[in-house]
Amino acid sequence: MPIICLPDEAARAAVGPLPPGTSVVLWDGTGEPPPEFEQVEFVVPRYPGAPLPAEVLAAAPRLKVIQLLSAGVEPWLDRIPPGVTLCNGRGIHGASTAELAVAGLLSVMRDLPGFRTAQDEHRWAQHPTGGMAGANVLVVGAGDIGRRIATALGAFDATVTLVARHARDGVRSMDELPGLLPHQDSVVLAVPLTPETRALVDAGFLARMRDGAVLVNIARGALVDTGALVAELRAGRLRAFLDVTDPEPLPPDHPLWDAPGVLITPHVGGGTHGWEQRAYRLAREQILRFVAGEPLENVVTDGY
Amino acid sequence: MPIICLPDEAARAAVGPLPPGTSVVLWDGTGEPPPEFEQVEFVVPRYPGAPLPAEVLAAAPRLKVIQLLSAGVEPWLDRIPPGVTLCNGRGIHGASTAELAVAGLLSVMRDLPGFRTAQDEHRWAQHPTGGMAGANVLVVGAGDIGRRIATALGAFDATVTLVARHARDGVRSMDELPGLLPHQDSVVLAVPLTPETRALVDAGFLARMRDGAVLVNIARGALVDTGALVAELRAGRLRAFLDVTDPEPLPPDHPLWDAPGVLITPHVGGGTHGWEQRAYRLAREQILRFVAGEPLENVVTDGY
Repeated sequence: MPIICLPDEAARAAVGPLPPGTSVVLWDGTGEPPPEFEQVEFVVPRYPGAPLPAEVLAAAPRLKVIQLLSAGVEPWLDRIPPGVTLCNGRGIHGASTAELAVAGLLSVMRDLPGFRTAQDEHRWAQHPTGGMAGANVLVVGAGDIGRRIATALGAFDATVTLVARHARDGVRSMDELPGLLPHQDSVVLAVPLTPETRALVDAGFLARMRDGAVLVNIARGALVDTGALVAELRAGRLRAFLDVTDPEPLPPDHPLWDAPGVLITPHVGGGTHGWEQRAYRLAREQILRFVAGEPLENVVTDGY
Repeated sequence: MPIICLPDEAARAAVGPLPPGTSVVLWDGTGEPPPEFEQVEFVVPRYPGAPLPAEVLAAAPRLKVIQLLSAGVEPWLDRIPPGVTLCNGRGIHGASTAELAVAGLLSVMRDLPGFRTAQDEHRWAQHPTGGMAGANVLVVGAGDIGRRIATALGAFDATVTLVARHARDGVRSMDELPGLLPHQDSVVLAVPLTPETRALVDAGFLARMRDGAVLVNIARGALVDTGALVAELRAGRLRAFLDVTDPEPLPPDHPLWDAPGVLITPHVGGGTHGWEQRAYRLAREQILRFVAGEPLENVVTDGY
């Protein structure tokens, strides 16, 4: 009789009826866990939210699966007890995150913020801008998000290059970045944060980028050395669209807010209406697989 | 010995060397035409620019071809002398116009103007927005621009419906618009302005659109009844992204500037760096075809 932990009543309703013999306990990760949490086998933590305390997870001896609703998993990696499988929310936020990357990149390229200011002042102020036709765009990360971005920008005649840890058909290797960067009009970050990718975009990476190129980060703030980026923005040499920053939230007095040529959104890549429906459809499918003893999808660390 | 009229020296350089026996005369359409204009056979008018005066065209008895660098042709249709072929610039601005449509639509959907205001105020202000995943988008016009928009939005899991004058494979008929409109989260106008499409988007059309839907116009301002649109915007019932308006340019005191939920750019769909290269590549190809006696492309009205 497996016990499933869901964050709240809305989640229970969204997941829908489960097979006979399955029971649900509700806990959103705040305050003390309910006593039944010690018997829980499958946990869907609240999204967005802080990771559950390591000692709470360690005190649930029957725990088998933690199913996150986020694509990123890095705050959880230090607290997964032995024998517990961690699954992520790949696919839930992919379309909306790729969409925000393209929206922000095109906004910067076509100067929509500048035209918006002219609109506020009732000025019909035509000026030519850059665009994607004939531009080179490098997408770091060849997963679902990276591939969606490549399809969308290809429709506007951009030449898109995907890079990933290992080269494969249609994907170049990260090792080739130094040679690729000087030819790009935009570099889009769509990789997970790992020890290898932390501060990947440092002063040297930025220095190799072409004058006027646009850095896009819709993945994790710590992929970028913020100080080095602020220096390039203040020099007027690069532009950027950032949905994620380091630190986050960005404090009111941070120099990034007013750096020239930067457009910032507050980590809303996955934040579109309807994400709950996509999220709990995935959670339901995974719970049904678990109850039926079938292999899970989106496995990040396999404790089975 | 065919004489070709190009607008200026920059155009002559961009077109490049022409076959022996071809000569070039320069005129940008302002002031008096040079005397050689009377012998001209092929004209590439300045872009952007007003159409050449009807009496000047009528006074060029050897004129065979007018090659425009714009996609739209409507200001020229009343002044093409008998026997003269009018060609448009289809393909020159397609990628950049489709790109601006997507940039503006996604900006409105994801509230980039609102997040930009928060950035100006140094506020990390998360809020959920709409997005394309699961949304329905209707594109009126199934040409190059409409198809590029469909490809890009499809990458974000939108369901895109194309409509055109005549139904065909994958394209619905304009006659079906009344039934289609109530189901759309966005309607994108990408059709030429003709007597049939003038004021296509009138009060009745807008009334059929779903609450909160986004009208996108990157084609021609006169496709839309501006007064009816202003009324819907002021009621807070619809939103819009407009790169073209009626009148144009929009006067400083026009109510559209400050209507809620509208983002306006000043007819810059084709206005990206590099358009000249694409434009004069087409012009060169058409001149070479003409000199060689081969069929022309992009023919709008055939006077041969």
